[in-house]
Amino acid sequence: MLARRSSPSHHTTVAIAGVPVGEQPLVLIAGPCAAESEAQLCAVAESLASLGVRLLRAGVYKPRTSPYSFQGLQDEGLELLGSVKRAYGLGVVSEVMSVAQLESAYEVFDCFQVGSRNMQNFELLKALGQARKPVLLKRGLAATIEEFLGAAEYILAGGNAQVILCERGIRSFDPATRNVLDLGAVALLKRLTHLPVIVDPSHATGRRDLVLPAARAAVAVGADGLIVECHPAPEQSVSDAAQALSLDDLAQLVAETAAVAQAVGRRLPYPMERAA
Amino acid sequence: MLARRSSPSHHTTVAIAGVPVGEQPLVLIAGPCAAESEAQLCAVAESLASLGVRLLRAGVYKPRTSPYSFQGLQDEGLELLGSVKRAYGLGVVSEVMSVAQLESAYEVFDCFQVGSRNMQNFELLKALGQARKPVLLKRGLAATIEEFLGAAEYILAGGNAQVILCERGIRSFDPATRNVLDLGAVALLKRLTHLPVIVDPSHATGRRDLVLPAARAAVAVGADGLIVECHPAPEQSVSDAAQALSLDDLAQLVAETAAVAQAVGRRLPYPMERAA
Amino acid sequence: MLARRSSPSHHTTVAIAGVPVGEQPLVLIAGPCAAESEAQLCAVAESLASLGVRLLRAGVYKPRTSPYSFQGLQDEGLELLGSVKRAYGLGVVSEVMSVAQLESAYEVFDCFQVGSRNMQNFELLKALGQARKPVLLKRGLAATIEEFLGAAEYILAGGNAQVILCERGIRSFDPATRNVLDLGAVALLKRLTHLPVIVDPSHATGRRDLVLPAARAAVAVGADGLIVECHPAPEQSVSDAAQALSLDDLAQLVAETAAVAQAVGRRLPYPMERAA
Amino acid sequence: MLARRSSPSHHTTVAIAGVPVGEQPLVLIAGPCAAESEAQLCAVAESLASLGVRLLRAGVYKPRTSPYSFQGLQDEGLELLGSVKRAYGLGVVSEVMSVAQLESAYEVFDCFQVGSRNMQNFELLKALGQARKPVLLKRGLAATIEEFLGAAEYILAGGNAQVILCERGIRSFDPATRNVLDLGAVALLKRLTHLPVIVDPSHATGRRDLVLPAARAAVAVGADGLIVECHPAPEQSVSDAAQALSLDDLAQLVAETAAVAQAVGRRLPYPMERAA
Repeated sequence: MLARRSSPSHHTTVAIAGVPVGEQPLVLIAGPCAAESEAQLCAVAESLASLGVRLLRAGVYKPRTSPYSFQGLQDEGLELLGSVKRAYGLGVVSEVMSVAQLESAYEVFDCFQVGSRNMQNFELLKALGQARKPVLLKRGLAATIEEFLGAAEYILAGGNAQVILCERGIRSFDPATRNVLDLGAVALLKRLTHLPVIVDPSHATGRRDLVLPAARAAVAVGADGLIVECHPAPEQSVSDAAQALSLDDLAQLVAETAAVAQAVGRRLPYPMERAA
Repeated sequence: MLARRSSPSHHTTVAIAGVPVGEQPLVLIAGPCAAESEAQLCAVAESLASLGVRLLRAGVYKPRTSPYSFQGLQDEGLELLGSVKRAYGLGVVSEVMSVAQLESAYEVFDCFQVGSRNMQNFELLKALGQARKPVLLKRGLAATIEEFLGAAEYILAGGNAQVILCERGIRSFDPATRNVLDLGAVALLKRLTHLPVIVDPSHATGRRDLVLPAARAAVAVGADGLIVECHPAPEQSVSDAAQALSLDDLAQLVAETAAVAQAVGRRLPYPMERAA
Repeated sequence: MLARRSSPSHHTTVAIAGVPVGEQPLVLIAGPCAAESEAQLCAVAESLASLGVRLLRAGVYKPRTSPYSFQGLQDEGLELLGSVKRAYGLGVVSEVMSVAQLESAYEVFDCFQVGSRNMQNFELLKALGQARKPVLLKRGLAATIEEFLGAAEYILAGGNAQVILCERGIRSFDPATRNVLDLGAVALLKRLTHLPVIVDPSHATGRRDLVLPAARAAVAVGADGLIVECHPAPEQSVSDAAQALSLDDLAQLVAETAAVAQAVGRRLPYPMERAA
Repeated sequence: MLARRSSPSHHTTVAIAGVPVGEQPLVLIAGPCAAESEAQLCAVAESLASLGVRLLRAGVYKPRTSPYSFQGLQDEGLELLGSVKRAYGLGVVSEVMSVAQLESAYEVFDCFQVGSRNMQNFELLKALGQARKPVLLKRGLAATIEEFLGAAEYILAGGNAQVILCERGIRSFDPATRNVLDLGAVALLKRLTHLPVIVDPSHATGRRDLVLPAARAAVAVGADGLIVECHPAPEQSVSDAAQALSLDDLAQLVAETAAVAQAVGRRLPYPMERAA
């Protein structure tokens, strides 16, 4: 298995638009669930810049339970993301759900995200194995660690070594939180694989007030970074409104996780005076 | 929602190669996990013919946890299936995992199966919405009923009304069986939707000795049919050996489910004297 | 393990108030979630008598999530149950949650039920191992088959061989049904143990309209009987109102399961002309 | 609900043998799964003393899946624990499974632990509501937050306000770890209730190499303390050998969690020079 760690010192660094993932500094990827408008993306981009965050997440292709729900801005969103990316010098992490989208988005996305629902979409994984860009692979809703690493292996076996794993919560019996954040899995993955492992505390909890504590815990357990949802006006978010942070919350998250990072021998590469 | 039942008498019939699914007679789809060889497929096809079973399942594109496991015979398998289908006059139900496979297999498959891992592969579902062939949609490993019906809706909304739902077991905490057969979900689906609902007792239990009782229960709960794995030499099966029925077991399944079918006002359209 | 089956023909019969459980005829245990009043119990008892059902379930000690919810009629309920039992010649199956209750209820209960929440209340199981009465042991909400049989073993090891196992649904991620009825587990238990195995379709589904199909499926899979909730006025039930059958529904259940029983070589020992 | 927090500043402190739980300093409770011998307990007690840990966990009544597994030293264990407790001036936290054990252990135990399997053993909870000692209530294997708080309410409603909640992992589909540590639940509980909430990283992960990262994460998420398993010779532990820390590991845990505690504005009240 190419994904397996050969020794405790075996670590792989994946660079997204020049930002290293898997090294001593933690990575922070932030942005709205979906790209909605130029104004929204610019407001987020400015906040990210002020916090020193260099990677933007924003969906243009949205996987939705119902075909009648908002499916993302698609082509229009691609254009928006492209212009905001150039204007602010951000790297873009965004989901693709098919080989066709992978091709359309090739110029705009700096890292292709594979969502939970597609973790075992093997044809997509094989196509990403041929891509020359990083892949952020999210764990499936009920995927075992063995299945998660098997999915990564499809990409690695195809010749693409730039794979980042992302724990984003698993299904459980309790409706109190959207999912169950499985940080034991993160600790285990760090022992089994040399690939970077990050955490999505937004989807894992589904509640704004739980995202910060979950983010702190993810850093403490040994994750290599975070991907979080934020929005200039969370309550107006077109999707996932309940879990999006405000931009002030995001600054708070940077401050709190930076302190924990230091306690575990890591750091956030962000100007703390801004966050404080 | 197009998938919702408008009244208790609202039922949709989907025909696969002329075999109706969703009417009073139950449907039985049987065959090996994977097409392996001409000899294997012919042995199965002859057994099916002798039992009066007219629909063959056999995978040529196999979704596997590891990229290094057998991935199906692919193009070679398509050819084999095509010739066996013509020779024995069977309808073929088989899995597609991508739009490209859908196109390659269009002439050979009479019904496209969407596997559990792809239940929310929305790009595939949209492509199937444009297809003019029946779709067998399997429930995801941890999909809620709402998500299952939402996935069906993607196909229906695209203009393809020929959708069959398939319960195949869900993930649980107990390693004693491969999955947990959720027959309450089948009873519920029969109340919520007009679409045919069938059951896969092979994947749901993962153990040969539990397939027959599970099949009887599925018929008793009100399922419109069964899809089961069988193999001329189960212990030599390339994949899923533990759950494949022998061809004698399959005859026994026909006999036992026929008796239960009668008890619930349904029937198996098969020559019972052969099965007895 | 005393619970393990030594051969395929190894079956144990447990008699509750003279009614055999685990023989060719299926057993049906029915009644309200909780004993509420003399009028309620008499109405149920008369219905049971008219259907030929000889075993009454009715809780007097109720395990409730909140201490402020109705906890059962306790001593008053015991007296009521005792007088109804004598008046109608019924056997009584009812839950005990502690050794003290076991002692108080000894004269009135013909079978002690251990509820899901107490499946691993080992001190209670040990006390029941000393009792000279049958025990109906319900599977825990998230108990593996190994744990379920281990719990039974506590009773058997204490010297009480009269144990009946009861599958009543397990916890899952889907809020659509109260629990997930695990009939694969029933089929598996029938292979692993010589003890009788019955099914509770009421708690397993939590919805009145799903109880009948679930009951049919349970009989088809090979269960030795059913325990179901019914009430003279289901919508007025003090607890579990959503899942209680009316007394007419119960007659319908007897008719439908009798037909399935016959299909699997069993029978319901009830006067079918009444049920029809 | 007495368990509900009335305002963000509403916190309850519970003192075990004079050690406060729920205040700014975190609590650490450590010791073997089971009391095995005087030598074992003394070795642990000396290590705890050298680390400044003042609360010892050690089971004398062990809930085991099989009646044939070691059930704890029972009365002999009580005596051992009593003498070690006096000799080293430690507070003792230990499990009771019945009202009878509660009475036997009253003089020796400083805090009664209710295990996962007994979280809804309501008769035990009611008896603990009458006790004048702290109760450590562990979350059930598949208990929702609502059920967990409901169980606490049984104790509170009985008049005992000294309740500590403990998250110890929930059941999931993945065999890779023993349970899934649900830290989102800890963050949520800290918002819903004024009671102290601690975490058991040993049972939550079941693997020695994951206990330290899980402990760090628990502190980062906002837990009020930890209960961990340690043993002078972990591989010789009579039960739960795979998850017990060595006494050196325990010192490492104190050092690592102390650093994280500081990052979140808490502290471990232990002599760090010893731990370093």
